[in-house]
Amino acid sequence: MEYREILDIFEQHDKFLILTHKSPDGDTLGCGFGLCYFLRDMGKQANVVNSDGFPDRYDYMYAEYTEQDFKPEYIIAVDIADPALMGKNLVEYQETNAVDLCIDHHFSNKNYAKLSHVEGDASAAALILYKIFKLSGRPISDIIAKCLYTGIATDTGCFKYENTTPDAHNAAAELMAYNIDYANVNRRMFDVKSKGRLQIEQIVTAAMEYYLEDRCCMIVITTELMNSCGVDQAEFDGLASIPLSAEGVMLGLTVKQRHEGVYKISVRTTEEIDASAFCSVFGGGGHIRAAGCELKGTLEEVKEKLLERAKQVINA
Amino acid sequence: MEYREILDIFEQHDKFLILTHKSPDGDTLGCGFGLCYFLRDMGKQANVVNSDGFPDRYDYMYAEYTEQDFKPEYIIAVDIADPALMGKNLVEYQETNAVDLCIDHHFSNKNYAKLSHVEGDASAAALILYKIFKLSGRPISDIIAKCLYTGIATDTGCFKYENTTPDAHNAAAELMAYNIDYANVNRRMFDVKSKGRLQIEQIVTAAMEYYLEDRCCMIVITTELMNSCGVDQAEFDGLASIPLSAEGVMLGLTVKQRHEGVYKISVRTTEEIDASAFCSVFGGGGHIRAAGCELKGTLEEVKEKLLERAKQVINA
Repeated sequence: MEYREILDIFEQHDKFLILTHKSPDGDTLGCGFGLCYFLRDMGKQANVVNSDGFPDRYDYMYAEYTEQDFKPEYIIAVDIADPALMGKNLVEYQETNAVDLCIDHHFSNKNYAKLSHVEGDASAAALILYKIFKLSGRPISDIIAKCLYTGIATDTGCFKYENTTPDAHNAAAELMAYNIDYANVNRRMFDVKSKGRLQIEQIVTAAMEYYLEDRCCMIVITTELMNSCGVDQAEFDGLASIPLSAEGVMLGLTVKQRHEGVYKISVRTTEEIDASAFCSVFGGGGHIRAAGCELKGTLEEVKEKLLERAKQVINA
Repeated sequence: MEYREILDIFEQHDKFLILTHKSPDGDTLGCGFGLCYFLRDMGKQANVVNSDGFPDRYDYMYAEYTEQDFKPEYIIAVDIADPALMGKNLVEYQETNAVDLCIDHHFSNKNYAKLSHVEGDASAAALILYKIFKLSGRPISDIIAKCLYTGIATDTGCFKYENTTPDAHNAAAELMAYNIDYANVNRRMFDVKSKGRLQIEQIVTAAMEYYLEDRCCMIVITTELMNSCGVDQAEFDGLASIPLSAEGVMLGLTVKQRHEGVYKISVRTTEEIDASAFCSVFGGGGHIRAAGCELKGTLEEVKEKLLERAKQVINA
């Protein structure tokens, strides 16, 4: 779609409901609230919803937000590649054509909406919205700028990852002209962790196992470990990058117990190794630097299979 | 100085020696090697020196570098605010006027060189060099671009900190047009840690002490702890940000033993607290978010003084 067509839609309707994805991150929320405030500034009614509620981490985006009372007539999904990602409290919008417009940046978008605008090479969905808002010629308020900056910074790992584009840097440069307190936003997003999370990272780091002349590093997260920490299960997500943080390691393996005898393996690699190829022999897959698979057996059997495969790929 | 005058200097001389600061970081080395390659591309002779040698972490900048054999006739210091920062192996250049030209971005620059170009509001010294190189109209090679990107990313914490400017983002956007493999550069700079460092961070995180309803967090690093790790002392630098990484903490205190009965205190704060004011009552000082002081006494006495002061500033 042309950006102009999307702006026409904003003009033509009056009561918008904006859907964001479950386990919300800075991009989906930055898009949701950025778009909501933009529409309200246009004189429209707009609300944002999330199946899991709005987490404290991003509360600067919705400190002043109050829900408006109206019956939605136009439904927009932002940063949602698949209806299943809407979550259990938004199940009514998961049917085909329940969403009027989807704005997203995932190549894998399932085209579930009546209209979809997907830019798979955009660093963040918030970057697409920023370009749309700019084209409108309407003023962008500080809070909108802060929401969009949050989205772009989140999805690029603060401009660190491969998916960071010149466009993302240019947008950040422009958004810094607004009062967005970016240093504080970044601190909250990238530096601050819950006590529980700090505790888990500490335990996991202490238990890092090095193999094959320190080129392979493994962490094992058993159900027993998860229960013993007394920490919310969600805090155990996103640990897969830890094994690769050790100098010299080219193959990082995270072994997480699902049930008795079933383990989920997350694989991260440096440029020397194809993570997807590593996993394919176990029926898994993914991307070249990040992939996954599932293995069955005792923990010892699973580790043995992984290390045998590790020896193959590292010596290749 | 005008950038044009600096380019004239590059034209007018033939044999350059480039000085970088001790305990080298990505900015001083990015400037050093970026400038060296730029001068060599101009047909000049140029070498880079560092008192401590060139660390492995940044070896992608000097993998192809070989020292040239010549007697220097023009000395340039990059990213060196104070001659004392040249280090013990470059003591011959610490005398007044021993350096011909200094290019730097520290407001605190001591103006020790014959000519100084200091932009205190530049995010990185590499950003200044980039602008100078651009103005020359000469081609910038991939390796020069990679060196300059490294400098800018290093000093802004990958575009995370307060000192990140629109200029820094715009330069990054332009430098990404070159083959600089920025994701890998960033991974090496920001994600990879030595085994020793990982071990230390794990030990320190495990020993985080929370006070005053978790708004104050303290870590204590004793000589005994440092010795027991069997890790290089330099690995214990830069831990002061850890206490502030816990959610809700507004005052982070790092207590590091210097000698028996002497402790160095590093203070980090969120926007609610003035770190410099915290330290001033102990005869220390610094910046509003990062400051330091020294306290004498037993560890218990030192902690008691700090917590008494913490109570004052948190309740204020």
